[in-house]
Amino acid sequence: MTGIVTSPSIRFLQRPTASAWIEQALANLDLILLDHSHCERKAAGVALNLMFRYPSYAKLVRALTGIAQEELDHFEQVNQWLDRRGIPLGPLPAPPYGARLNAEIRRQEPERLLDTLLVSALIEARSHERLGLLAQHCPEPELAAFYRGLMASEARHYGVYWVLATTYFERTVVQERLAPLAQVESEILATLHPKPRIHS
Amino acid sequence: MTGIVTSPSIRFLQRPTASAWIEQALANLDLILLDHSHCERKAAGVALNLMFRYPSYAKLVRALTGIAQEELDHFEQVNQWLDRRGIPLGPLPAPPYGARLNAEIRRQEPERLLDTLLVSALIEARSHERLGLLAQHCPEPELAAFYRGLMASEARHYGVYWVLATTYFERTVVQERLAPLAQVESEILATLHPKPRIHS
Repeated sequence: MTGIVTSPSIRFLQRPTASAWIEQALANLDLILLDHSHCERKAAGVALNLMFRYPSYAKLVRALTGIAQEELDHFEQVNQWLDRRGIPLGPLPAPPYGARLNAEIRRQEPERLLDTLLVSALIEARSHERLGLLAQHCPEPELAAFYRGLMASEARHYGVYWVLATTYFERTVVQERLAPLAQVESEILATLHPKPRIHS
Repeated sequence: MTGIVTSPSIRFLQRPTASAWIEQALANLDLILLDHSHCERKAAGVALNLMFRYPSYAKLVRALTGIAQEELDHFEQVNQWLDRRGIPLGPLPAPPYGARLNAEIRRQEPERLLDTLLVSALIEARSHERLGLLAQHCPEPELAAFYRGLMASEARHYGVYWVLATTYFERTVVQERLAPLAQVESEILATLHPKPRIHS
């Protein structure tokens, strides 16, 4: 496998995932599953934290309740895969990806809300792209089917964050802010993190 | 209405809720619904935080995934009631109950885990008791039926926290620690908080 293996359907992302990542992931499927479990739990946590922080934003609260529920469902499903493969649940050091993206979030409102929604959209878009790559290339048919199954709902999540951003901010403001954040996101992943992760 | 109005089926609780609370709640049903929404979201947050903190504790992670899912379902249902009554979502200052109980949690492990599970069990038990009182006394039949409907699953939650406590700790240790925590819990509520809340 060489070159670029991603689908062009992922908007938001400035650069597609390089083949080095999928090679690393396929050689470490168990570790990727364990990291994936952490990602789903963290994604539910992000949605819930936003619901805590903006309790008056009815559209945000409603949409993120749905996302948190889906992420918890996925968390449960990934954990069933871990069980089936005899992989114990446990901590796993996170790659620098999340912390470096969070460092881009401005601290004052309303910029903080805009940036948080866009960073979440980018993370969801990247997750969607990479789960799609696993669905496409995983040599174990059942596991590949599982990744394909997750994508149906994962695909919606970055759309939800995008729609929320354009609900609370002017579209031009959203698009102007997305560009530099998407650039940072792609730059972080331009160097493959040595430890296999969903966002290595 | 005078005297004691609670069911004796609630174990854990050292003292039943006094009638002053139900009178306060019935006179402020809209505010109680809004606070209830916050309680469900916070309960989901507590479960998720525990899953973050103890990622290797498989039984805890599995049980609390289920609880977080149910709390989010309830959160959604309570918010539909708010919608229907034209009550906007919004922040609401919490009563002292949660913070005062959290202050009882010891900071070192493994005591921290034991105390967190028992405080969660107590809060769930009290919520269950008080939702039961609302189901019993609410003059609006549909709303009363809603509270009754929630109780079926709420009833399990304090049991889950209790079972987790006895999974990770000796039963005698759990029981010895429960007694003083339950006493503090009842003492906090012995004086009715002037603002109507689920835990006023």
